[in-house]
Amino acid sequence: MSIVADFNAYREKMNGKILAQGNTNLKRFWALDASTYSEGALPVKVKEMLGLVSSMVLRCDDCIRYHLGKCHEQQVTTEELFEVFAIANLVGGSIVIPHTRRALEYWEELQTLE
Amino acid sequence: MSIVADFNAYREKMNGKILAQGNTNLKRFWALDASTYSEGALPVKVKEMLGLVSSMVLRCDDCIRYHLGKCHEQQVTTEELFEVFAIANLVGGSIVIPHTRRALEYWEELQTLE
Amino acid sequence: MSIVADFNAYREKMNGKILAQGNTNLKRFWALDASTYSEGALPVKVKEMLGLVSSMVLRCDDCIRYHLGKCHEQQVTTEELFEVFAIANLVGGSIVIPHTRRALEYWEELQTLE
Amino acid sequence: MSIVADFNAYREKMNGKILAQGNTNLKRFWALDASTYSEGALPVKVKEMLGLVSSMVLRCDDCIRYHLGKCHEQQVTTEELFEVFAIANLVGGSIVIPHTRRALEYWEELQTLE
Amino acid sequence: MSIVADFNAYREKMNGKILAQGNTNLKRFWALDASTYSEGALPVKVKEMLGLVSSMVLRCDDCIRYHLGKCHEQQVTTEELFEVFAIANLVGGSIVIPHTRRALEYWEELQTLE
Amino acid sequence: MSIVADFNAYREKMNGKILAQGNTNLKRFWALDASTYSEGALPVKVKEMLGLVSSMVLRCDDCIRYHLGKCHEQQVTTEELFEVFAIANLVGGSIVIPHTRRALEYWEELQTLE
Repeated sequence: MSIVADFNAYREKMNGKILAQGNTNLKRFWALDASTYSEGALPVKVKEMLGLVSSMVLRCDDCIRYHLGKCHEQQVTTEELFEVFAIANLVGGSIVIPHTRRALEYWEELQTLE
Repeated sequence: MSIVADFNAYREKMNGKILAQGNTNLKRFWALDASTYSEGALPVKVKEMLGLVSSMVLRCDDCIRYHLGKCHEQQVTTEELFEVFAIANLVGGSIVIPHTRRALEYWEELQTLE
Repeated sequence: MSIVADFNAYREKMNGKILAQGNTNLKRFWALDASTYSEGALPVKVKEMLGLVSSMVLRCDDCIRYHLGKCHEQQVTTEELFEVFAIANLVGGSIVIPHTRRALEYWEELQTLE
Repeated sequence: MSIVADFNAYREKMNGKILAQGNTNLKRFWALDASTYSEGALPVKVKEMLGLVSSMVLRCDDCIRYHLGKCHEQQVTTEELFEVFAIANLVGGSIVIPHTRRALEYWEELQTLE
Repeated sequence: MSIVADFNAYREKMNGKILAQGNTNLKRFWALDASTYSEGALPVKVKEMLGLVSSMVLRCDDCIRYHLGKCHEQQVTTEELFEVFAIANLVGGSIVIPHTRRALEYWEELQTLE
Repeated sequence: MSIVADFNAYREKMNGKILAQGNTNLKRFWALDASTYSEGALPVKVKEMLGLVSSMVLRCDDCIRYHLGKCHEQQVTTEELFEVFAIANLVGGSIVIPHTRRALEYWEELQTLE
């Protein structure tokens, strides 16, 4: 199994269990997590890059993977992606470097799935 | 081996090595880590939920596992647990979501060990 | 003007402006911020202490002030409060100390407003 | 004096002193801080919003002010700004709320300087 | 009053109140905060620079001030200090820049108190 | 394969790919990451301990591994290392404990490679 498929499968399985438990506030929070990235004054593509850079500076690998998948759907180019990487490294510092390595590995696999 | 047993075994092995090295300040710090959660004006159960929510917003998976084990011993219910999850997600943001997934997986395994 | 009154006045004024702007997702997020702390399987008092300890380890002075106000309404005692402080200092480290100083100052003023 | 003018004056004065001291690595780092936001595959406007959202989730008020100034120069609209705020609040959690209040106050002053 | 004197006066006053309240775990934690920086295999001067760089990357202005005072007592030179600043900026990213500005301002005042 | 060899191999492979992509700002940032730790007013050994403690309080396992390797090259003793660990635990709190366990495991393997 690939890292993309592994990530998606685990995410889907556990999200299902969490939502099934029925905590209203948690469900509302997760619903917001979807609606906040929808088309608005800013296009989805920009919003997904905003989600990606935030996830990088906060150093959450799974969040990075999620937004990389979305950026890929939105046809962010590799050149654009590296400009997001550069900002994330600058703002968040050298501790972002290991996450950048794993992000690129995931991105490369996303390309092969096209 | 299970994720609970793996976590406990590694934790115990490495803690033993660290304490054996004999740095007094580090040993005192670790002793404090035990005594701070003991019964006081607040019951142990509440203190362990405080430890759990702190570990979640700071996104430390091993700390989360440790406090989940303690919450389980203190008979925190799954419904109560999800209210802690909801606060952690709200305060710490969507970057807490991946840790919530792994926390639930660990919690489910704790239930099966009863 | 006191630090409690200053905090509340500024918070109210700016919250009003933010909500008036009408971004739906932001408004929903803020609504969640209220409902997540309401009575549930866990009592409000415990939830507010969970909010407080999270705010302390994440070192957000204004969030600490907000939850101190709520803890005071919920009749958290000073002895209980210090047990929350002790957990926050232990989990979050010595960088929490300056926030503990400011938290106590705010707490003392809350007592005088009774 | 206004908060915008205060911020800019202090920033300029201290930056001058830091650069005058002549630590090469620090100077290179600060030079990078400028070049990373220049026009590339992504337009400056998008890069500045990326810088803003990163500063918000990392909760650095002065960084937020700096990027608000740049976003204002790039003619980011208030509606777009609030979409950045919504993402920052969602990803970074309710601890971002106090920074959102201060960000709006600064933004309002920027409008009056037009 | 100066920023150095203000910081020290407030710190002393509030520390006194916190220790007077008598929470044993909190008092032990604070005692550790002193003993961990005492002479050992590493000299006090190196330990204080370790405390300073940690405070900078975690962006705690009051912690930075405290360790700047100690570094000054340990006769850290301004050239050495800037090498600590360079590492803190690199590791922690551009969000450390505003703290670097305030750190230099405090350091300059420390020099004038000699 | 060992954890040291695994870490180095993955790091080298991905760094190569990232640098090959040719984003100038990212390349400059990474160049800075090397030059900042070179001999200056402070010796390399002290700088590497500064890098290590920063990585520990920011809880970046891969950064910790990198600096442990460098500290080992600089002949930091185990006793000195534990004093760095003690400061990292104190400043960063108990959430640093799991990273301390993994750091010691890596350090032990570094010793066997001598």
